[in-house]
Amino acid sequence: MAAEIAEQPAAWSRLLDGAGRDGASGLDRAAALVREHSPRFVLLAARGTSDHAALYAKYLVEIRLGLPAGLVSPSTLTAYRARPDLRDVLLVAVSQSGGSPDLLACVQTAREQGALTVAVTNAAASPLARAAHAHVDVLAGPERAVAATKTYTAQLLALHLLLARVLGETGDAAAALPGLGAEVLEAAPGPVSELATRFRFVQRLVTTGRGYAYPTAREAALKLMETAYVSAQAFSGADLLHGPLALVDPLVPVLAVASPGAGGDAMVPVLESLAARHADVARIGGDGAAVPLPPVPDEALAPLLEILPLQLLAHDVAVARGGDPDAPRGLAKVTETL
Amino acid sequence: MAAEIAEQPAAWSRLLDGAGRDGASGLDRAAALVREHSPRFVLLAARGTSDHAALYAKYLVEIRLGLPAGLVSPSTLTAYRARPDLRDVLLVAVSQSGGSPDLLACVQTAREQGALTVAVTNAAASPLARAAHAHVDVLAGPERAVAATKTYTAQLLALHLLLARVLGETGDAAAALPGLGAEVLEAAPGPVSELATRFRFVQRLVTTGRGYAYPTAREAALKLMETAYVSAQAFSGADLLHGPLALVDPLVPVLAVASPGAGGDAMVPVLESLAARHADVARIGGDGAAVPLPPVPDEALAPLLEILPLQLLAHDVAVARGGDPDAPRGLAKVTETL
Repeated sequence: MAAEIAEQPAAWSRLLDGAGRDGASGLDRAAALVREHSPRFVLLAARGTSDHAALYAKYLVEIRLGLPAGLVSPSTLTAYRARPDLRDVLLVAVSQSGGSPDLLACVQTAREQGALTVAVTNAAASPLARAAHAHVDVLAGPERAVAATKTYTAQLLALHLLLARVLGETGDAAAALPGLGAEVLEAAPGPVSELATRFRFVQRLVTTGRGYAYPTAREAALKLMETAYVSAQAFSGADLLHGPLALVDPLVPVLAVASPGAGGDAMVPVLESLAARHADVARIGGDGAAVPLPPVPDEALAPLLEILPLQLLAHDVAVARGGDPDAPRGLAKVTETL
Repeated sequence: MAAEIAEQPAAWSRLLDGAGRDGASGLDRAAALVREHSPRFVLLAARGTSDHAALYAKYLVEIRLGLPAGLVSPSTLTAYRARPDLRDVLLVAVSQSGGSPDLLACVQTAREQGALTVAVTNAAASPLARAAHAHVDVLAGPERAVAATKTYTAQLLALHLLLARVLGETGDAAAALPGLGAEVLEAAPGPVSELATRFRFVQRLVTTGRGYAYPTAREAALKLMETAYVSAQAFSGADLLHGPLALVDPLVPVLAVASPGAGGDAMVPVLESLAARHADVARIGGDGAAVPLPPVPDEALAPLLEILPLQLLAHDVAVARGGDPDAPRGLAKVTETL
């Protein structure tokens, strides 16, 4: 897990280069197909960590592409055998392995029902990659740790580049990411180690963010759950104020992801409410952050950097508690849900 | 809270009668507008408990109406000022109070962007009710407890009746609900009290369900969090197998909602995985349930019954821990998020 966390900037470079040389990633072909079909609604299908990349894409689609979007509940198509009218719909399935039977069923059904389908995976020869009209390879290289790290940020980058291409943008801002990522990974170990000490005995923890940072909060919570068995719960900053805030007391610390931008600005009242409850808040990104991050040229790229110290934190807390982040209990790399 | 839990069958009768007499609920007018516009996509906007009713409606729309659907991330419209193309879109906003500024902004923006908008609230004179093209009044009567109970099940019923009317169905199956609800509320206190004793000292708890039962699992977790401060986490049965299963050990009990039907059938492998981990599982609905429920004429109506013992459980655990479910810390009835 530690090795794969460290590999991320190199993986991003591969995707950025592969995206440049048409063919390796398949981004250009997928973007051309999407432009040709000009969808009016976008559905995203994924599970686990990939679902957080899909949620990130949902924000991009709504904000940048100006289209309504939804996350698919695969059971409607599998368990309930729904056959919705999907003409004018783009369905994007996101999966590390491309091997989940329920996502495959989603793509096959969506195709039959008239949708344009794009698979975003780290496995070009997978059933999901072959089932979709187009495949985007995130080019992260083999991922051996059960906890997904480099495939997650490679998915974020691939989805960002895909949307930029659909919009006819160059996506040049992303070129700075490998350098910025390396900078974060060099500076983070000290502050992250301090955070891991601070949260060593935590039983329950809340993560929160708004906008593009909300998927980061979700993914951080999942990493803490699956590697360190911390009962981490993610809430959008807005939802936190609707009930779950009652959970937060001085024994339940909060990881607040609030990079500069519209999402970070929208977190100000949430941070104020947390301060009023004397919560132990560790901020990622922005002013007064426990782990500072370098500025990014585009707020929508910040999630690639925000998650890095949080992956490290999950790793360090797992190790501090005597666990093995490379062998979390009860998990397999490909989850076979029907 | 206890009084409002008990009032639910009477509230449902009011809505069923009001739905019959055109005018009181506004269901007929809203359904006629939806049919006239024949939307191709459905968006649902809500926060907190109402978001779980919206999620229930998403399953209904996908399965019964055969249309793709998505839950709105309000921050895309407010914080990021996205202006998506919403022609051919139906946006349904669900809110107890009809007073949340961010939902109001969603409805106003969606209208401007070409969507047909329907508000489902318990407040006919609210800003949200006035802003939408049509309003459905869930007719639950004033809700005084901070923890929403009767407005939640009234929202479920109103959304079910709305969709049935859009499909030209009579919705007769729902007529049995008040009787069935009264039956559940009469039988539940004993088994629920036993469950509250069993879970009295629980710090962390997982709730799970699939399909129509997944919103129930989400709402049960929220009720346990906001009234009893149990760190309850909800996962769809499928997502539970993707990582969070690592959280479950003999100290983390699981409330599994699995009524008979496609959703309950899809829970079988999840229940098997939980048994293999020696988890303490309490089942709601179906065979071997800790709280048995009467059969319903339509699986999609089961969520109205499933949540009743879980509302009672949140109440009883709060009381057992010396809390006051009518005065949960840190919560207000209308949450003002922008």
